[in-house]
Amino acid sequence: MVKLRKQYAVDRPVYSEDSLAEDHEKVYRLRKTILDHLREYLTWDSKRGKNAALSLLPVIGWMRIYRVREWLLGDVVSGISTGLVGIMQGLSFSLMASLPASYGLYTAFFPMLIYFFLGTSRHISVGSFPVLSLMVGSVVERLVPENGTYNITGFEDLTQDQQKVLVASSMTFLMGIYQLAMGVLQVGFIVVFLSDTLVSGFTTAAAVHILVSQLKFVLGLTVRGLSGPLSIIYTLEKIFVQITSTNICDLVMSILIMAVVFIVKELNDKYKAKLPVPIPIEVVMTVIACGVSYGFNFKTRYDVDVVGKMVSGYESPIAPNVEVFKECAVEAFPVAIVGFAVAFSVAKVYAIKNDYTIDGNQELIAFGVSNIFGASFRSFAASTALSRTALQESSGGKTQIAGLISAMMAMIVTVALGFLLEPLPTSVLGALVIVNLKGMLMQFREIPYLWRRDKPDCVVWVATFLGATLLGLDLGLAVGVGVNLLSVVFRTQFPRCSVLANIPGTDLYKDRKDYTQISEPKGVLIFRIPSPLFFANIEFFRDKLVEAIGFNPLRVLRKRNKALRKIKKLLQKKGDGATETTDESRMEVEELDQPSDLRGLPFRMDWTGGLSVPRVDLHSLILDFSAVSFLDISALKGLKTALKELIRIEVDVYIVSCDACILEKLHSCMFFDEEILSSMFFPTLHDAVLHVQDKHKDKRPGWVVREANHAINTSACNDCVTIEN
Amino acid sequence: MVKLRKQYAVDRPVYSEDSLAEDHEKVYRLRKTILDHLREYLTWDSKRGKNAALSLLPVIGWMRIYRVREWLLGDVVSGISTGLVGIMQGLSFSLMASLPASYGLYTAFFPMLIYFFLGTSRHISVGSFPVLSLMVGSVVERLVPENGTYNITGFEDLTQDQQKVLVASSMTFLMGIYQLAMGVLQVGFIVVFLSDTLVSGFTTAAAVHILVSQLKFVLGLTVRGLSGPLSIIYTLEKIFVQITSTNICDLVMSILIMAVVFIVKELNDKYKAKLPVPIPIEVVMTVIACGVSYGFNFKTRYDVDVVGKMVSGYESPIAPNVEVFKECAVEAFPVAIVGFAVAFSVAKVYAIKNDYTIDGNQELIAFGVSNIFGASFRSFAASTALSRTALQESSGGKTQIAGLISAMMAMIVTVALGFLLEPLPTSVLGALVIVNLKGMLMQFREIPYLWRRDKPDCVVWVATFLGATLLGLDLGLAVGVGVNLLSVVFRTQFPRCSVLANIPGTDLYKDRKDYTQISEPKGVLIFRIPSPLFFANIEFFRDKLVEAIGFNPLRVLRKRNKALRKIKKLLQKKGDGATETTDESRMEVEELDQPSDLRGLPFRMDWTGGLSVPRVDLHSLILDFSAVSFLDISALKGLKTALKELIRIEVDVYIVSCDACILEKLHSCMFFDEEILSSMFFPTLHDAVLHVQDKHKDKRPGWVVREANHAINTSACNDCVTIEN
Repeated sequence: MVKLRKQYAVDRPVYSEDSLAEDHEKVYRLRKTILDHLREYLTWDSKRGKNAALSLLPVIGWMRIYRVREWLLGDVVSGISTGLVGIMQGLSFSLMASLPASYGLYTAFFPMLIYFFLGTSRHISVGSFPVLSLMVGSVVERLVPENGTYNITGFEDLTQDQQKVLVASSMTFLMGIYQLAMGVLQVGFIVVFLSDTLVSGFTTAAAVHILVSQLKFVLGLTVRGLSGPLSIIYTLEKIFVQITSTNICDLVMSILIMAVVFIVKELNDKYKAKLPVPIPIEVVMTVIACGVSYGFNFKTRYDVDVVGKMVSGYESPIAPNVEVFKECAVEAFPVAIVGFAVAFSVAKVYAIKNDYTIDGNQELIAFGVSNIFGASFRSFAASTALSRTALQESSGGKTQIAGLISAMMAMIVTVALGFLLEPLPTSVLGALVIVNLKGMLMQFREIPYLWRRDKPDCVVWVATFLGATLLGLDLGLAVGVGVNLLSVVFRTQFPRCSVLANIPGTDLYKDRKDYTQISEPKGVLIFRIPSPLFFANIEFFRDKLVEAIGFNPLRVLRKRNKALRKIKKLLQKKGDGATETTDESRMEVEELDQPSDLRGLPFRMDWTGGLSVPRVDLHSLILDFSAVSFLDISALKGLKTALKELIRIEVDVYIVSCDACILEKLHSCMFFDEEILSSMFFPTLHDAVLHVQDKHKDKRPGWVVREANHAINTSACNDCVTIEN
Repeated sequence: MVKLRKQYAVDRPVYSEDSLAEDHEKVYRLRKTILDHLREYLTWDSKRGKNAALSLLPVIGWMRIYRVREWLLGDVVSGISTGLVGIMQGLSFSLMASLPASYGLYTAFFPMLIYFFLGTSRHISVGSFPVLSLMVGSVVERLVPENGTYNITGFEDLTQDQQKVLVASSMTFLMGIYQLAMGVLQVGFIVVFLSDTLVSGFTTAAAVHILVSQLKFVLGLTVRGLSGPLSIIYTLEKIFVQITSTNICDLVMSILIMAVVFIVKELNDKYKAKLPVPIPIEVVMTVIACGVSYGFNFKTRYDVDVVGKMVSGYESPIAPNVEVFKECAVEAFPVAIVGFAVAFSVAKVYAIKNDYTIDGNQELIAFGVSNIFGASFRSFAASTALSRTALQESSGGKTQIAGLISAMMAMIVTVALGFLLEPLPTSVLGALVIVNLKGMLMQFREIPYLWRRDKPDCVVWVATFLGATLLGLDLGLAVGVGVNLLSVVFRTQFPRCSVLANIPGTDLYKDRKDYTQISEPKGVLIFRIPSPLFFANIEFFRDKLVEAIGFNPLRVLRKRNKALRKIKKLLQKKGDGATETTDESRMEVEELDQPSDLRGLPFRMDWTGGLSVPRVDLHSLILDFSAVSFLDISALKGLKTALKELIRIEVDVYIVSCDACILEKLHSCMFFDEEILSSMFFPTLHDAVLHVQDKHKDKRPGWVVREANHAINTSACNDCVTIEN
């Protein structure tokens, strides 16, 4: 460390905010009102129009700079490998959404067609995302229960699978509408409320849900899907009840596949630097499993559940069902938010890495239209999967051309090669999903990490995780957001207020309990508020202030006024022989709270004298407002009351280091009157202290020096103990 | 204003936080951990036990200081007048809860018996409160619909009125359990989340609900009670559909009574000082109405709805219905919160006025037990009514003896005089309720007041009002609390970051756009963050910082590293004739983000030279952290990344005026490494600026003086415009 021995020398007049403004001319700045912002927003000229049109079709932007020779090969290679993974994920995630496996192929195809034109991210792989599939699945299970029916018009002539597809696509349509609406209203910024901590807790809970949902495939059991709070418990119960009917062939195959995939993935990771492309072990295993299942006829011989009849080709578009809209109006909203938030955060990572910008609102529009379009062709909720996007980027994808090619892969399988996947056992898909959960489940390690570093964040994580696990993902997300907001309020609700004192020989003021040698000006209390003041902590602040000054100012004021009244009465009696009878019993309590009326007294009151009134040794209170970043109306009222009580017992109050915006606000909110003056504001603490010392230099001057053992000023020490808690 | 011309003279070494700690010894303070707090909380000694016992029975405290001669008369007078009003309010509010009128008498009696012993407030009048009655009423209407039945076991053999009473008392029982639990868990502080603004919007909405609920009585119509979202709209619709069947006798009587009561109340207010007790006009009108109705036999002659058969005497206690618990588990919670919050805030006002303390958690216990006890005797949700408490205090009540006497009044009417109230038309009760809504409805005037002073608070008011009006009081309260919490986050989400500059001749730094004459040290940017940093604003802060410094540090770093690589390659080629081939295409993007590796270069890099790398004129960035009252984990990560990017392009970063607690937290969260050093912290802005000037005194020294027209430093001016938005 470099020794800093340069001198800090200042010699200037002591300034209050008022005198500073006198000496240094201020610029009058016109602040924009909400109306101005709105007007600006609605102003429309041709240039802005052109920009808007361009920003609505980002494809134009990156197509113009497309470097065919450098990028095309990478895009094609990446598109093919991502496409293969996308097809398999589509199948698994479709099962997760309680739909026939082949609808996942639609989801890998249709949304991408639109995103290609409208999306601003060049790297994300658009398609199914397990968390969304699960959320859609819970609605599908609710509206199309396995046994029994749910009364929805338009469902009469449909098979159960058709009903399920209609529910999923209608919900996806609604989700698209929500996303589009948010994009048009430019409210993409709301995803900031999904903090990293919350997303981590939420995705971990999702991983647990996914794990449980895949157990039935891995064990080869038939378990009715459940939805609603505590459904995870009931599902586990159902699985354990029939654990004896586990299909051994499924189980063995799953364990084998999980083991192989796990080991190869670890090797991929270890030799990342040496391998040109990671080994596509999942694709390999799928092909092997298909072959083995077909060759040994697993389906009939071991009663293994297979993917079965695939759709071949595309079906005509369908209109969403309005009654389903009504049923899932609430549930589709978190799906829309989560879908966007995941895609946006993944896209942001790659945008920063590759140095281009993405636009949140345009992304919302892109996903909204993609989902609406996709839903019309029976695909379900699309977003992006982290693993797929990572693969697309790492295998050389530079633009959404890669995405388009992987969509084409899905198309080829749909149209021509689907039959090859028909013998694939569903347990293989389940096993592949489970082995991929490792990363998400590893997030459990954040709990001890967060606990050591930041307890409120840890509480947010745990609350979100428990909420999303037990109550379901949609309700859990709401709980998480609530707790997250609450955590912000909580951080400021019990501020660690402190009493400051001067470090001898400097203009610096620090917490008086933190230094061995520190001195306090006599009769002056310097109180620091280390947080914004608002409805939730203004009472706490007032309590702490009363604790720090050591007496209740209102009580002192009342006692003084009572004493004063007695004195006046005595004087009056002396003066005119009790002609006027002031009725003691009718004197109002409110009157006692008014400023002491010293007019008409023949002498100067000295409250420090022997009257039966508490002695107040404090003559000045300095409030350090440097950390008060905002004040709301409740805080303003509370602060005003607290200051008035002090001013009325002749304690001068000074506020220092107050932000210019807050000062402005105090003026506009009529904070000042004949008692609370704007001359109480000082730019720095030291200015205020110098001013106070100058004002009180005739009486009780000097400093109280506090030693390490805190023995000199015992009353102050008592304060320390009480303030601390 | 007094001229402050005292000199501010300081001469000390320039301090960084490190050198300050070296020169001034710090006290090592052991912070209490959560475990310590818990241990302390669980420690139990005989003294604490005695105190706890005393605080559980506050009656002992005030009974010991009871001044019989001074207080008893006031208590009796106040008890009688409050009792009369309480009886009438009981009847009206009972109708509001969709119960037979006479159950209001129970509510005026039973809860008070318990509160007398357990309550810490000496002035509140315990009993029915219209908002609670309405909230209970909506559940009663839902579970006991007028036509059709709701399947609840235990309801089979009961009449509809009995069912209603059972629902109301079960819900009250549950509400009592909630309150008792909150009291035992010491979570009474949660009422701070109900800010004044929220309560104002909520009670205004309640007034609208009450108004609508009383219209049917005033018009003499039979309208089925409704509950749930938008029920207020449907109720109004139902009323207007049958407005032609209005009972003229009811309407005329109501209007007459409202007019008389309104005028007399205004007079009461005007001559408050001269009247010993306000004219009890409501009681007078009730007595007159009873007499007239009985004399002219309104019930049969004009088909007027009257109170009818009163219960005479008390019924045996009933057990609550567990199935009702399940049905109203969610709705009873806001009732418990609102009931307590209202009583506590009213009690606090009178406690401050009369200088005694109330204990929130003990109040919760008192109301909890009162409601559980009351519910067992068929009374419904009790809290306090503002009007009744004001009357009790103003008419001389000093302690809960007054409350006990008013409970006795209710008992007398129940046991003996109930029959006198039987001919009372319900329209009279409705009219009295409506005329008393004036104060609550006047709160609409807060909208323009809040809009002018504090827009977020205004939004909270309007959102709470609209939510509570349209969605119902329980859901509306949840919406209000949510919006209220959101408002706190919002206030800090778009902080007005500013670039500071020096006021010439001082050590003061202010927003450079606010002063006509202000000077900036060359090559130094002083950036002030006026709010805490957390997940919702860390990205915003980073954007603003990049705007203020005028370039993207990451981009500059990458360009430098690319240039560096080229140079190294050239050097290598020169040196050993291209033996080693570094594959350009495989260079990782991540590598470009690492610190520039200048080792092995035969000359010193000077980035300001002619290379194809953006020129960076900034050599130091000073962040003013004085208003950063907390940092969460997301903010910590974001800040660390932002600082690293700057440090890697050789911009020195300094953080000044950082709170001691935050500094401690940064240490405990491993914020520091080989790039981010703890020597970057300075106690004041001026210290940092002096240090920077000393360090860079050889190159580009001096200050840029900015004039009023902002013409000198145009690039800085462009910043101004962009930062401002």
